Amino acid sequence: MSETILEKTEGRVSYHDSVEEMLKRIREDKMSNVFDRWTLQEKIRCKFCLEGLSCKLCSQGPCRISEKGGQTRGVCGIGPDAMAMRELLLHNIMGAGTYSHHAYEAYRTLRLTAQGKTPFKITDENKLKWMCEKVGIDTNQDINSMALQLADLLESEMAKDPEKPSIMVEAFAPKKRKEVWKKLNIYPAGVVHEEQNCVASCLTNVDGDYVSLAKKALRLGLATIYTAQIGLEMVQDILYGTPQPHEVNTDLGILNPDYINIVFNGHQPWVGAATIEKARTEEIQKRAREAGAKGLRVVGSIETGQELLQRFEIDDVFVGLMGNWLAIEPMLATGAVDVVAMEENCSPPAIDQYAEKYQVTLVSVSTIIGIPGLQHLMPYNPREVDGMVERLIQLGIENFKKRKGKIIPKVPQRVQKAIAGFSCEAVLGALGNKLDPLVEVISSGKIKGVVALVNCSSLRNGPHDWNTVNLTKELIKRDILVVSGGCGNHGLEIAGLCTLEAKEMAGPGLKEVCELLKIPPVLSFGTCTDTGRISMLVTALADFLNVDVPDLPIAVTAPEWMEQKATIDGVFAVAFGAYTHLSPTPFITGAPQLVKLLTEDVEGLTGGKIVLGDDPKQVADGIEAHINNKRKALGLK
Amino acid sequence: MSETILEKTEGRVSYHDSVEEMLKRIREDKMSNVFDRWTLQEKIRCKFCLEGLSCKLCSQGPCRISEKGGQTRGVCGIGPDAMAMRELLLHNIMGAGTYSHHAYEAYRTLRLTAQGKTPFKITDENKLKWMCEKVGIDTNQDINSMALQLADLLESEMAKDPEKPSIMVEAFAPKKRKEVWKKLNIYPAGVVHEEQNCVASCLTNVDGDYVSLAKKALRLGLATIYTAQIGLEMVQDILYGTPQPHEVNTDLGILNPDYINIVFNGHQPWVGAATIEKARTEEIQKRAREAGAKGLRVVGSIETGQELLQRFEIDDVFVGLMGNWLAIEPMLATGAVDVVAMEENCSPPAIDQYAEKYQVTLVSVSTIIGIPGLQHLMPYNPREVDGMVERLIQLGIENFKKRKGKIIPKVPQRVQKAIAGFSCEAVLGALGNKLDPLVEVISSGKIKGVVALVNCSSLRNGPHDWNTVNLTKELIKRDILVVSGGCGNHGLEIAGLCTLEAKEMAGPGLKEVCELLKIPPVLSFGTCTDTGRISMLVTALADFLNVDVPDLPIAVTAPEWMEQKATIDGVFAVAFGAYTHLSPTPFITGAPQLVKLLTEDVEGLTGGKIVLGDDPKQVADGIEAHINNKRKALGLK
Repeated sequence: MSETILEKTEGRVSYHDSVEEMLKRIREDKMSNVFDRWTLQEKIRCKFCLEGLSCKLCSQGPCRISEKGGQTRGVCGIGPDAMAMRELLLHNIMGAGTYSHHAYEAYRTLRLTAQGKTPFKITDENKLKWMCEKVGIDTNQDINSMALQLADLLESEMAKDPEKPSIMVEAFAPKKRKEVWKKLNIYPAGVVHEEQNCVASCLTNVDGDYVSLAKKALRLGLATIYTAQIGLEMVQDILYGTPQPHEVNTDLGILNPDYINIVFNGHQPWVGAATIEKARTEEIQKRAREAGAKGLRVVGSIETGQELLQRFEIDDVFVGLMGNWLAIEPMLATGAVDVVAMEENCSPPAIDQYAEKYQVTLVSVSTIIGIPGLQHLMPYNPREVDGMVERLIQLGIENFKKRKGKIIPKVPQRVQKAIAGFSCEAVLGALGNKLDPLVEVISSGKIKGVVALVNCSSLRNGPHDWNTVNLTKELIKRDILVVSGGCGNHGLEIAGLCTLEAKEMAGPGLKEVCELLKIPPVLSFGTCTDTGRISMLVTALADFLNVDVPDLPIAVTAPEWMEQKATIDGVFAVAFGAYTHLSPTPFITGAPQLVKLLTEDVEGLTGGKIVLGDDPKQVADGIEAHINNKRKALGLK
Repeated sequence: MSETILEKTEGRVSYHDSVEEMLKRIREDKMSNVFDRWTLQEKIRCKFCLEGLSCKLCSQGPCRISEKGGQTRGVCGIGPDAMAMRELLLHNIMGAGTYSHHAYEAYRTLRLTAQGKTPFKITDENKLKWMCEKVGIDTNQDINSMALQLADLLESEMAKDPEKPSIMVEAFAPKKRKEVWKKLNIYPAGVVHEEQNCVASCLTNVDGDYVSLAKKALRLGLATIYTAQIGLEMVQDILYGTPQPHEVNTDLGILNPDYINIVFNGHQPWVGAATIEKARTEEIQKRAREAGAKGLRVVGSIETGQELLQRFEIDDVFVGLMGNWLAIEPMLATGAVDVVAMEENCSPPAIDQYAEKYQVTLVSVSTIIGIPGLQHLMPYNPREVDGMVERLIQLGIENFKKRKGKIIPKVPQRVQKAIAGFSCEAVLGALGNKLDPLVEVISSGKIKGVVALVNCSSLRNGPHDWNTVNLTKELIKRDILVVSGGCGNHGLEIAGLCTLEAKEMAGPGLKEVCELLKIPPVLSFGTCTDTGRISMLVTALADFLNVDVPDLPIAVTAPEWMEQKATIDGVFAVAFGAYTHLSPTPFITGAPQLVKLLTEDVEGLTGGKIVLGDDPKQVADGIEAHINNKRKALGLK
């Protein structure tokens, strides 16, 4: 392992031509941008921070660990391993906290919908019934009562302390995993309870033991997936429909400057979903035309875009997905955006300059986000969605009038097709509603194994999406099916890997399966929040085969993780029992015992472990070897 | 303001002779210790961290802000003010989370006590009734039903979202403050809800606006005091009695190596309280004598010690308080300690070396703390307190047998009397149960004003407790009454300032009042957790006079804050409307707009503000001037 920062390769900053094209305008316009800021920061990185050997939590700090100087501990007495692990746990908490914030919004949206107080309705009644059955709610009652009970149950599951057994973990965890977690004392309570324990543990002079801290992270990871993520994704399915595969458009070329373009950015679908419905009425389109536009459109941005994309058909109103977070500044520079409605990460903090330069109206539709100078605040409240939609549309119309004629649009003419909307139900559907065909193609070696790719996009290990795309190409070439979520998934969508045609890049076995089932070699499973959804597929497979997760020929990779939600997803994967590749290397390399714990010893405990590496080919080699070992142990060729 | 690190003065590391004395042994024994680690770290401090201009939250970091190098923003685009404020908010969250962890333990202890499942009982029935009246619980029912309802209410108040009004804030906040908070949109929900919002806000690319982040901190501070701190302190009063002033012993000289000494360290009184009761039985003392000891004793350490001290009389079993957190390593080096039972901060991470060297058994009686190599884990469960006490006593006996004869004890022969146990009730009691006499002595100018001193102890701005003691001496000399809580309070107790004799150090007016009411010039109000309790006294005064908090001749000081709970107490004080002195300077000096907001502009919003300064005399001058201004505005001479 190494803390070396890889240089950007081949003079490019992004795998995507559209982003490269926009960067020209951005630089001509002398706009501060994430790619150039990266280059500047490269000159003044702190080596202690890179290695996890710094702490600035208390007034006796900032401290650094330096064996050479004799500083083997911080002032309080903390050593390198606990210092690095505590910082990592703090990041895990931020990830868990953000997922549970999303879940809180989902559960109250469901509750108020059941009470008839939102513009939404129960779209997928079967999913609601299925969820109620899973968690023990009586399904012999009307839909809204069921939904109300489910909302209450899910909310109380998040807050649960260990005194009462977790209904969600019992219902959704793989059978053989539960005993492992109990034995290790990492069987989780509700995520809010675990967060509280973890955050108090990170206080100065509370937990200075890296093993104890690491176990808390594992427990928090499990709590996050089972009591926040899975619940919230199922609720979104109930409200807006369970994803089904369908063809969509992606990349910056979906923007047409002649239309009023309202972009939804973040991770939460509420206001975007309502706006699509509303914008599809003639009344709204007429208002748009009266303002001089060809119409009013909804544009999906990053994860919010994907949440919408996987549930709504593309048409002349909802036009698709612009890309992932590193494409946000480029998107704004097109001069074709009227409103950006934001509710979670990534809402980058310097886009106010773009809003001013390219005439964009920035709006918060959330209780948490903040951008300097943000003037339009609409804290999310499920009761007020109708009013929020109306205000957004009005802001869009007003902005269009100002933008038209003032800003010269420059939109890269690139649109990439993709098939989005895979879900467990969709996969099972493709297989004739049984798992045997999947087991069969894996057993026969046509598909050697499955890799879940869930992550962000980062410049740390190369150009935007470069590592994600290249690793994926390496994997499918080796007959490994890739199931993807997160910003990385959007990178793959835009790179054309989520198409039927991409089978040509796959190995012969996988290609055959793609042709047989009419699926791409990369199944777009959604957002980073769909980590839980992906785990449900793995759980179904493990339980079906009556084996434990670590026995399966599967792996997890986050080849460009960037923020703190990715860290809690990664920690979950290790607790779940998965071989978990992470790139870039987290800030732990100065903590040798911690590195050994996370990359070696933990395998003896959970069956999972962290694998590091920044080279796509080498990483694919490691994953393939791991999958082959697991195949062998299962008696497969 | 300056980010300069003050050097230790006069060749001392501590204001206290007992600590200086023990440090000789520690150094002779070549033990790593907090004082020498401080000196080593001084050589390699990071200037960026000191100024708040570094961030290591995401994989595109670590970033630094350097105007000179052109790095005016982090890679994501965050500027210096938001970077520093986000880190501060993260620390605030850790403090709030730790207080709410404590509150969680308090509320479930009360619930299980009401159900007869703990060794505890409702000790202060009047306090229980008073609390129930305050929050609208029917008092025409039996004690245990009342306690049960109160426990449920307090727990649900912590989790409350803004949809429902906060009962605790309504019941305990000063009348005129509530409107101010509503206007500023910082009227708080439950602390757990606010924590969730704040932690999600700190994620990369969520809140990059320093004003928005600062407002979240203010709201979190209010939520912490009203839904965690006040509730938990009232519950502790209900369970173990409301503090009343009485004489106690402090300093390391309370340790007698011929006894089995069980030390309780942290902030939570549960197991310590039960152990005192149990150790006062002849059965236990007999077992101790049979093991070759003169008896078995309970020793209070830092805040847990203070929680016990203010509620239990000193006798031959419960011998008093050893000091504050920087005296923990010195205490262990006495060779007179058998067991340290720990449950919250400060449980420093390197004391395993002391345990080994001086034969001490370290025990966790908590679900959160961790020390490398800790072998005795008893996660706190109110149901299992009896068993925990028995195991601790047994461990004490076993350790004594190993320690006796093996370790040469070296106990500084220093014991300092103090009067501990002031509470709102005690103060009112001393005044004949009305506020008029207090108002009178303030109006007449005998007492010019009141300063609440709440903090830790830090080496950053001079020797251990040096700043706390010297500032306090400056204040009382100016006829300013000091009400103290936290580790700083223990510094004052050991320095002899919490005695009747200390009136000689006070100005003539305060001295007269001390003589009249038979009180010290420094009222020991408890722990840092008693910040809420202190605010109750201020609230009573403001409401009695029908003025707002910023109108009162009062101030807050944290002259040696160290950890993150202190930061949330400080933020609360600003939202509460207080002139709030902090030393050392928080890591914000590289963020000019943030500094201006916190030290100037916020005064126009909440009426409170942060004041910085490391020189006790200058700080006292500032506080005196502030108090005189407020007196003038009230028409007092």
